[in-house]
Amino acid sequence: MNTTPSHFPLNAWYAAAYDVEVGRSLLARTICNQKLVLYRQIDGTPVALEDACWHRLLPLSMGRLEGDELVCGYHGLVFNAEGRCTHMPSQETLNPSACVRSFPVVEQHRFLWIWPGDPSLADPALVPDLHWNQDPEWAGDGKMIRVQCDYRLVVDNLMDLTHETFVHGSSIGNRAVAEAPFVATHGERTATVTRWMENIEAPPFWAGQIQHARGHVGPVDRWQIIRFEAPCTVTIDVGVAPAGSGAVPRGENPGDRSQGVNGYVLNTITPETGNTCLYFWAFARNYCLDEQRLTHQLREGVATIFREDEFVLEAQQKAIEEHPDHKFYNLNIDAGAMWARRLIDRMVDAERSDAPGAGPTVIPIRRAG
Amino acid sequence: MNTTPSHFPLNAWYAAAYDVEVGRSLLARTICNQKLVLYRQIDGTPVALEDACWHRLLPLSMGRLEGDELVCGYHGLVFNAEGRCTHMPSQETLNPSACVRSFPVVEQHRFLWIWPGDPSLADPALVPDLHWNQDPEWAGDGKMIRVQCDYRLVVDNLMDLTHETFVHGSSIGNRAVAEAPFVATHGERTATVTRWMENIEAPPFWAGQIQHARGHVGPVDRWQIIRFEAPCTVTIDVGVAPAGSGAVPRGENPGDRSQGVNGYVLNTITPETGNTCLYFWAFARNYCLDEQRLTHQLREGVATIFREDEFVLEAQQKAIEEHPDHKFYNLNIDAGAMWARRLIDRMVDAERSDAPGAGPTVIPIRRAG
Amino acid sequence: MNTTPSHFPLNAWYAAAYDVEVGRSLLARTICNQKLVLYRQIDGTPVALEDACWHRLLPLSMGRLEGDELVCGYHGLVFNAEGRCTHMPSQETLNPSACVRSFPVVEQHRFLWIWPGDPSLADPALVPDLHWNQDPEWAGDGKMIRVQCDYRLVVDNLMDLTHETFVHGSSIGNRAVAEAPFVATHGERTATVTRWMENIEAPPFWAGQIQHARGHVGPVDRWQIIRFEAPCTVTIDVGVAPAGSGAVPRGENPGDRSQGVNGYVLNTITPETGNTCLYFWAFARNYCLDEQRLTHQLREGVATIFREDEFVLEAQQKAIEEHPDHKFYNLNIDAGAMWARRLIDRMVDAERSDAPGAGPTVIPIRRAG
Repeated sequence: MNTTPSHFPLNAWYAAAYDVEVGRSLLARTICNQKLVLYRQIDGTPVALEDACWHRLLPLSMGRLEGDELVCGYHGLVFNAEGRCTHMPSQETLNPSACVRSFPVVEQHRFLWIWPGDPSLADPALVPDLHWNQDPEWAGDGKMIRVQCDYRLVVDNLMDLTHETFVHGSSIGNRAVAEAPFVATHGERTATVTRWMENIEAPPFWAGQIQHARGHVGPVDRWQIIRFEAPCTVTIDVGVAPAGSGAVPRGENPGDRSQGVNGYVLNTITPETGNTCLYFWAFARNYCLDEQRLTHQLREGVATIFREDEFVLEAQQKAIEEHPDHKFYNLNIDAGAMWARRLIDRMVDAERSDAPGAGPTVIPIRRAG
Repeated sequence: MNTTPSHFPLNAWYAAAYDVEVGRSLLARTICNQKLVLYRQIDGTPVALEDACWHRLLPLSMGRLEGDELVCGYHGLVFNAEGRCTHMPSQETLNPSACVRSFPVVEQHRFLWIWPGDPSLADPALVPDLHWNQDPEWAGDGKMIRVQCDYRLVVDNLMDLTHETFVHGSSIGNRAVAEAPFVATHGERTATVTRWMENIEAPPFWAGQIQHARGHVGPVDRWQIIRFEAPCTVTIDVGVAPAGSGAVPRGENPGDRSQGVNGYVLNTITPETGNTCLYFWAFARNYCLDEQRLTHQLREGVATIFREDEFVLEAQQKAIEEHPDHKFYNLNIDAGAMWARRLIDRMVDAERSDAPGAGPTVIPIRRAG
Repeated sequence: MNTTPSHFPLNAWYAAAYDVEVGRSLLARTICNQKLVLYRQIDGTPVALEDACWHRLLPLSMGRLEGDELVCGYHGLVFNAEGRCTHMPSQETLNPSACVRSFPVVEQHRFLWIWPGDPSLADPALVPDLHWNQDPEWAGDGKMIRVQCDYRLVVDNLMDLTHETFVHGSSIGNRAVAEAPFVATHGERTATVTRWMENIEAPPFWAGQIQHARGHVGPVDRWQIIRFEAPCTVTIDVGVAPAGSGAVPRGENPGDRSQGVNGYVLNTITPETGNTCLYFWAFARNYCLDEQRLTHQLREGVATIFREDEFVLEAQQKAIEEHPDHKFYNLNIDAGAMWARRLIDRMVDAERSDAPGAGPTVIPIRRAG
């Protein structure tokens, strides 16, 4: 039962699949309540069509590919990559209305991105920057999981890492995270939470990494720089360096992390419906780039951590549905999540208030560099 | 969740069970949203009662038979075959209102038929003709499957065999079916679609049958004569004969099928609810009547084909429920199904418009022969 | 789906758990639509708190104990046994509203009792008397089962033991129960049904008990004295004595059961929601007190009988939900259940009509001796 009203902008790019998930077979996905079928043409170009035949609504994903076209599995209507019907059984004349919706697709940084809203606004420059996922100076891998919750609960979760202490105590959490001060800032479409924990004992995960990569044992300076880009992408710059080795920025000095280890947790969370989402993540590192064993180990280690979150997020979703009118209190730690929510609301409100006649609004992203 | 509003006439005979399914135990079935308990009296007479005790609503199918009567499994109220309570625990006087509804039942052509509407209109002459299922000149067998869709989707499916090409390509479908012209006609309560495919290569199924039965290898004339009888019975006269052997009717000449092989696909689809149905089918043939092995093989072969339909029909039902306001476009191939729908609508509308005082309407069936 | 509107008083004690179920871990229970977390403090005192964190609603039962306090499993808010928040992450000042609801708890006769209504009315003297469950002159044991039905259907079931004949024919039922006359009486908050079956053949269960305990074989006088205490506790005084041995009360003579065997079936049924309940029961006997094997055997034997009831009750609940407007007819055998329902209605109505300003009503229980 979908008891949560949907709350997401349509004029935005959403990750629909990892690049390798889509090939010469038909993949069904739901993005923002819209059922899609994804495939690649012979030359590799990705295609996203509405997953319902124009004739009798059978999901086109139950059909088959014939060259670059898709044949419905019930009565054999054929649709091309633009969604136009090119063949009907037992008749010569094709109904000119016979087509299914086609969606803008961009392939970037190992994801296929879909724009479920107005196609004329689908500017590829608006795709979130996840270049660490495909950069020779970084190594990593990731996964996709389906979580039974509103995508915004995943955003909340990522915007406040205090929860590491309580949810992930055995790996990346320790008391320092819950107690360390942080700074929250925001832009027109981004919000950032920065937390430095100086001269602390590294939690088990990071203690292992810095020892393995740099041979360092002992106290560290640890950082977490969380950057949200509305509506649903969160990159987290994380790492540790030997305590006092200069990693901490001071005034104009950006800090020198060269003795430390650095990772990026890349997260983009695509609403399927109002209360389910597809959570795409990857973990990229800037050390020991050639160790495939380490890539594998980190991917599975992070997956284990995210399963702990999944358990909490789905319980929280259920509790929210049982308390539909609950007003939430915010703590200091919720500053980042509050800004993320506000930026999402702004995008949704902008879409809803777009008067017919007035041009629709896309909130700009200003990129550094 | 039943999200499809029910759409079926109540004044009609519906197959409730195969004859062998009902005996000296209690069988629960739902027909047109009505829960029934079926059993046979000691002399074999079938009984259909409302499946809810008058006292506390416990399903009577959870009780047991005592002679020709049914004892409720909770407090022991006893009901006779007419549904009248004949015994109550701890009291002598029976409440005169104590009875459950009893339904007209007819046993014919291997099915038990139930009339869920006004019993005074339950004329046994209106039971659909499925005599091939019990005729010494025909041999065959069938099954019942429960399909999670509106019964009308099964009717649509049977009224247009174009889908054989796309759904059943490995057995009975080939391109000829999708491309052959057909003729659709209709009567007051019936609709017929006739398709002759002359001088074609037989699809795998029929190639095997005519070779086995008649030793014929080579091109065939193939026929499919689909006859719908409202609200939910479809008989399909199917077969092949050696090409040019005279099977095709010409003007007054009805054709001579004696060198061919002929089968009847018998289908009657009983709505359980607005979005589930019981699909009873059988396949009868007029060749190799004594080959029990062939009967078994054909029954299982047809069952495999129908499972392919089931998969499509349930996906279609789900898609329709997700698009509650969708208006469907019709293609040429939908002519037969459109007539079937129109005849069903006519029966439903007639029942709904029966003013109190005015006698209810039963649309007549005119039988050939 | 909860299609049954809830119908239970809130100002009453409800069994939430067997004493042994609650210890130094967190137990989640739902009582009268209220989600609770139960645990014991270090000194053994039981605690019942609302099972939803004040901050983000995560069930507190997903957290952990720290001494006598509970730590939320998401962001680490800490609550004490009164439900007050005593710690928040990353901030010094606690929001004074930060607390979760705490419920009155009493431990008595092997159960933990919760009062979901107005705490100021939670008088421990109102806890139902189930002392046989903890009395050295009685031996026994019990279980808890979750039944998917309105708790009142279990009460109905217990108030009329006619059903033993039909539901439990192989153990405790025989025709005598369905035919024997009974007397129904009631008080302000109790209803009693008394049935004596004189000089009958004992049903299998009791024949075995009296032979084992007293060496008696042959006809018996059997009694069932069912006492309901609103809203949901039913104690049944059951047993048999050799026929004519003086057990039957006559006028002022209360009867002498010393040659017989006596048991108490203790039942208290706690609504979880409008259509599910927790059914706590125990069977205590006054013979062969030291036979642990007999205790085990009786507990499992009664559990088997109650599973037969569970099957009937859940089918009845389903049937009722399918007939939401059904008006029920009552038979003579329903006299006890009708009184029980009336007393429940009276409690519910009294709560609903309590005007703000007027003090709330608790219907008194008058105890014998």
